[in-house]
Amino acid sequence: MKKNLSIALCQLMNSSSKNDNLSRAGKMMELAGQKDIDLIILPEVFNAPYQSDLFPDYAENYPGPTTDFLARTAREQGVGIVGGSIIERSPEGRLYNSCFAFDEYGNLLGRHRKIHLFDVDMPGRITFRESDFLSPGNNITLIEYQGIKIGLLICYDIRFPELSRALALAGADLIIVPAAFNHTSGPLFWELVLRSRAVDQQLYVAAVSPAPNPQANYQAWGHSLVVDPWGKIIAQADQKEGIVWAELDFSANEQIRGEIPLYRHRRRDMYEIIYQTPSHIESRRKNK
Amino acid sequence: MKKNLSIALCQLMNSSSKNDNLSRAGKMMELAGQKDIDLIILPEVFNAPYQSDLFPDYAENYPGPTTDFLARTAREQGVGIVGGSIIERSPEGRLYNSCFAFDEYGNLLGRHRKIHLFDVDMPGRITFRESDFLSPGNNITLIEYQGIKIGLLICYDIRFPELSRALALAGADLIIVPAAFNHTSGPLFWELVLRSRAVDQQLYVAAVSPAPNPQANYQAWGHSLVVDPWGKIIAQADQKEGIVWAELDFSANEQIRGEIPLYRHRRRDMYEIIYQTPSHIESRRKNK
Repeated sequence: MKKNLSIALCQLMNSSSKNDNLSRAGKMMELAGQKDIDLIILPEVFNAPYQSDLFPDYAENYPGPTTDFLARTAREQGVGIVGGSIIERSPEGRLYNSCFAFDEYGNLLGRHRKIHLFDVDMPGRITFRESDFLSPGNNITLIEYQGIKIGLLICYDIRFPELSRALALAGADLIIVPAAFNHTSGPLFWELVLRSRAVDQQLYVAAVSPAPNPQANYQAWGHSLVVDPWGKIIAQADQKEGIVWAELDFSANEQIRGEIPLYRHRRRDMYEIIYQTPSHIESRRKNK
Repeated sequence: MKKNLSIALCQLMNSSSKNDNLSRAGKMMELAGQKDIDLIILPEVFNAPYQSDLFPDYAENYPGPTTDFLARTAREQGVGIVGGSIIERSPEGRLYNSCFAFDEYGNLLGRHRKIHLFDVDMPGRITFRESDFLSPGNNITLIEYQGIKIGLLICYDIRFPELSRALALAGADLIIVPAAFNHTSGPLFWELVLRSRAVDQQLYVAAVSPAPNPQANYQAWGHSLVVDPWGKIIAQADQKEGIVWAELDFSANEQIRGEIPLYRHRRRDMYEIIYQTPSHIESRRKNK
C-alpha cells in the first residue's frame, strides 16, 4: 500500500459563467498537473454560483459536460480528481449537490451526494435553504484511490460528527470536503470543526473552498486547508484564488493511533455508532 | 426553569500533602462563595498528586474525609460543588477516578467514575497508564442542579465524541470536565477538543485543570476554561492558581439550536448513536 499522497487543492473563484468556471478550473488543474501530484481537489459547486435559486439553471446530468470535462482532464493530466461538487440532475429529475471523483484514467471512483442540506436561519447574518431546490443524498461514500481510502463529504456534512466517525470506522485514511463556508460560519467553525474531525478520527482532512467572489451573492470563506491527524494545519490558503499543495504521509495516522489508541479505548459496551455501509465503486483501473 | 448559572472554576495547585490540598481548596471555595455564585468546580484529582503509582495511598471511600469535606463546604457556603475528582476506593476494594457532585445543601447529586482510563505511550513526551491502578467506570452520568442538566466527564472521557453526543441527546445543557491535560496534550488538544464538543453539541463546556506544580512528576496544563455553544472561550485561566468566573446563559443553547438546527438535521436513517441511559441520582432537596 502506498502510504503517501501528493495533493493539490484548487481554490477557484466561481462566477455566474459556467464556461468561464470550467475554463479557469481547467487552467488551474493544468498548472497543478505540471507537478508530480496524485490528486487534485476542487471546491463545492465549482462550476456555478452558490445560490440555491440558480441551482436548476446550472444543473447537469451525469454523465454530462462537467463530469466529461473532469474525466478528460484526469486522463490528460494522469492525475486523480475529486471534482468538488456540481448540481446534478438525476434521471428522475431531482437535483443533488454531488461530488464526482475520477482516477487518473478518467474512471469514476465514486459519487457523493450531499447528505445534509444547508438550511440555516441566522437573522442579520446568513439565511440559506438548500432544501428548497435540492434533494439530500442517501449514501455514505468511501472511495479508494492508490490504496488510500478516502471519505467524501460536502460542506455541511462535516458538521455531523457521527458521519466522520462512520467513515473512519469504515477505514478512511483521509476525509475530503469540498465546502463553501461563509463569512459567518467560516470564522466561527471552519478551522475548529475540520481540525477536530482530524483529531477525533486520527486521520487527514482536506477541505477545499471557492475563493470569495466580490460580485457574488454568497461570499465563500476560502481558507482551503489540509489538517494532519495531530490537528496541525499543514497547508492553507488565504482568500485569494490559488493552489494549496500538501504531501500526506499516512504513517502519521498509524503513529498517533499507536500512541493514543482512541479506537481501542472506545467503550462500545456503553455507546456505539451504527451506520449504513458506505457505498463504494471499485476502481476499474485493473480492467483496462 | 432557571436559564442562568454562575460558576467558579477553582484552578488549584495540588501537592503531595492531602491536608494541604484540602486546606487550599477550602480557602479558594470560601473565596468563591463570597460572590453570589451557584456552582463551584474543582480539578481532576484535586486532593492528591496525579501520579498513578501513588493513587492507592491517596484513595478514600465514599463517604470519606474528602467527600465529607465537599458536602460540608457546599452546605456552609450554600453553593453547589462539582468536586473535581478523587481516587475512590469502592467497597469491593477497586480504585476509581471519581467525581462527586453536591447540591447547596450538601446532598449528593451524582457520582461519575472516569470511564476511559488514560493509557498513552508517546515516547519521549508522555507515558501514563491509569489502568495499572484504576478500574474504569461503567456509567454515563447526567446530574440536574437548579433545573440545569449537567453531563459529567473526567479528562480523557472528553476525547470520545460519542460520549458528549450521548450526554447532549440525553438533555445536557452543560458538560463539566475536571481534567488534567499535560504539556504535550494541552497545547495540541485542550482548546480544540473542548471547543469542538461545545460547537458540535451546541451547549456550554466548562473544564477545570489543576495549576501546574513545578515540584510534581506530572505537569498539568492549567488553562481552565468555559466555552459557549458558539465555540467562544468566555473565560480562561493561564497556568497560575486562581478562580475563573463565568456566567452561563442557557438561552444561547436555544438560540444556536434554532439558527443552525444540527439536531433536527441529523440523518438518523443513515447513522445513529446508541448509548446507555445516563445514571442520575435525583436531588433529595425536596425531601428536606
